[in-house]
Amino acid sequence: MATTDEPELVRELLAGKHRALARAITKIENRTPGYRDVVSALYPHTGDADVIGITGSPGSGKSTLVDKMAKTYRDRGLTVGVIAVDPSSPFTGGAVLGDRIRMSSTATDMDVFFRSMSARGSLGGLSTATADAVKALDAFGKDKIIIETVGAGQNEVDVVKTADTVAVLVPPSSGDDVQMLKAGILEIGDVFVVNKADLAGANQTVTELRNMLDLREGEEGDWEPEIAETVAKDGDGVDELLDVFQSHADWLDDSGRRAEKRHTRYAEELRNLLREDASELLEAEIEARGGIDDLVARIDAGETTPYELADDIVAPVADALGRDRHNG
Amino acid sequence: MATTDEPELVRELLAGKHRALARAITKIENRTPGYRDVVSALYPHTGDADVIGITGSPGSGKSTLVDKMAKTYRDRGLTVGVIAVDPSSPFTGGAVLGDRIRMSSTATDMDVFFRSMSARGSLGGLSTATADAVKALDAFGKDKIIIETVGAGQNEVDVVKTADTVAVLVPPSSGDDVQMLKAGILEIGDVFVVNKADLAGANQTVTELRNMLDLREGEEGDWEPEIAETVAKDGDGVDELLDVFQSHADWLDDSGRRAEKRHTRYAEELRNLLREDASELLEAEIEARGGIDDLVARIDAGETTPYELADDIVAPVADALGRDRHNG
Repeated sequence: MATTDEPELVRELLAGKHRALARAITKIENRTPGYRDVVSALYPHTGDADVIGITGSPGSGKSTLVDKMAKTYRDRGLTVGVIAVDPSSPFTGGAVLGDRIRMSSTATDMDVFFRSMSARGSLGGLSTATADAVKALDAFGKDKIIIETVGAGQNEVDVVKTADTVAVLVPPSSGDDVQMLKAGILEIGDVFVVNKADLAGANQTVTELRNMLDLREGEEGDWEPEIAETVAKDGDGVDELLDVFQSHADWLDDSGRRAEKRHTRYAEELRNLLREDASELLEAEIEARGGIDDLVARIDAGETTPYELADDIVAPVADALGRDRHNG
Repeated sequence: MATTDEPELVRELLAGKHRALARAITKIENRTPGYRDVVSALYPHTGDADVIGITGSPGSGKSTLVDKMAKTYRDRGLTVGVIAVDPSSPFTGGAVLGDRIRMSSTATDMDVFFRSMSARGSLGGLSTATADAVKALDAFGKDKIIIETVGAGQNEVDVVKTADTVAVLVPPSSGDDVQMLKAGILEIGDVFVVNKADLAGANQTVTELRNMLDLREGEEGDWEPEIAETVAKDGDGVDELLDVFQSHADWLDDSGRRAEKRHTRYAEELRNLLREDASELLEAEIEARGGIDDLVARIDAGETTPYELADDIVAPVADALGRDRHNG
């Protein structure tokens, strides 16, 4: 980890070259050979940025809000990076981000660096790639990094959970939709934002959210989730929202939770990497044994079962780790 | 795989003892030692059942429909197994299934075997456990096996995808909700069921579904998804729905897709098992190196990075597989 080991790309990134930042993130997203050295070299330069995750169902106004947040941060003299996560399904095909990409490509203000990332790899892959891209922005010196998800599916929730502060956008609507929030998303919000607060039903939604949050079984010393109201398209409430984010950031520091969260995140990163590595090694092993189709053909023919095959493939690994542990 | 190797539990299950079936599924769900031998011994006796997955958002009427489906199958002289998958979150806490469990515990008709399964393990774990429980029901001789999910989150979609025929329940409602279906669930449905078809908006929902399905880019020879209408609480349309399921089952046989699907499923089962095994081995390795917290403390202190640690931990595994391949 000596500075002399730093890849050229990392040196340029640390020197403030936007092009190097863009290239580093592309490398991270595509898992281009050498990306691991890049990310490894970024680590010592990270830890100063505030990472804010924004999630919510499609149509809740996330991209408009993120644009206004970025503008407001810039007005405050802060630099901003935005990563929009799009786990492109065969049906959305990434088209959702079309407008945003156009917007960012015409933007001349480099203090807002905008990038979208899609799910090229596995579930774990997208979380890891996003976390690594955040590191690039952090090491580059961005003050605020916003992770924005396209939808609020499980993949996206997993990604946004890696942020320091998580905001969940809720459109004003019927009680039914607030009920649906229950499935996994209520737990992750530090701040709930009722956007489009000028629409009918906003007060009702705030009340329902309040009631549901009151049912959360928090522990002594936990952060009490806040509810904020915005009209993102007019910029109303955005200043106040950023103040709420700041109060959560302060709480993270004062309570020691920021360090705890970082520790937990490092542990998850390590586990994700190990999973990816193991998966690659096992795929190579499957190939070396004739490929998955040939192996499965033996199951089709009733000669073996997935369990017997798995035992067989994993045996040398178990032996290796066993031996290693006894020697070590 | 000789019959003499069959665990006693499997012999009893194959002999038609419901208690052995229940015990086998409990063993599978809890990953009790020996469960692998049980599942391995079940494989040669599987392949005769039709597996139908039912998913859809909470409140779409899945459990009522499944009850009516089970009753109608019984009227037709067929035996039925139902697995209700509940990826219990801290917020739902499994309570959703309360009524069903009560219902099943008072049921005297053993031709419908009802079990709920929760997410004790990982994401992959729940899919694997459900697929294994299906095998137990299949080997037992159930004609129809229904996998019912509590919600329609990513975990549940992954689980229900393992069925031969997937039905997606859609409540009659506004276009907004049909739009939300886009995110991942449209692709998996062989049959879309507009339940509560007596409510206002049902025709509109059918039309919107039809329009969205027309946009699907299917390939020549693909199954054309069907749309069915039911009023599950009154049993209306259930007979016709089962006929649609049967026509999909016939298509699977005639087109050769059933064999293809099974092949794909075996490949996924093998990969899931390998992932689980690798994950267990790596966790043991982490423990052997002092535990995750001690390892991560070195990252916290800036002494190393997750990438360097992962490389270090995986190295002996890579060596083992490399050596094994060269020798083999």
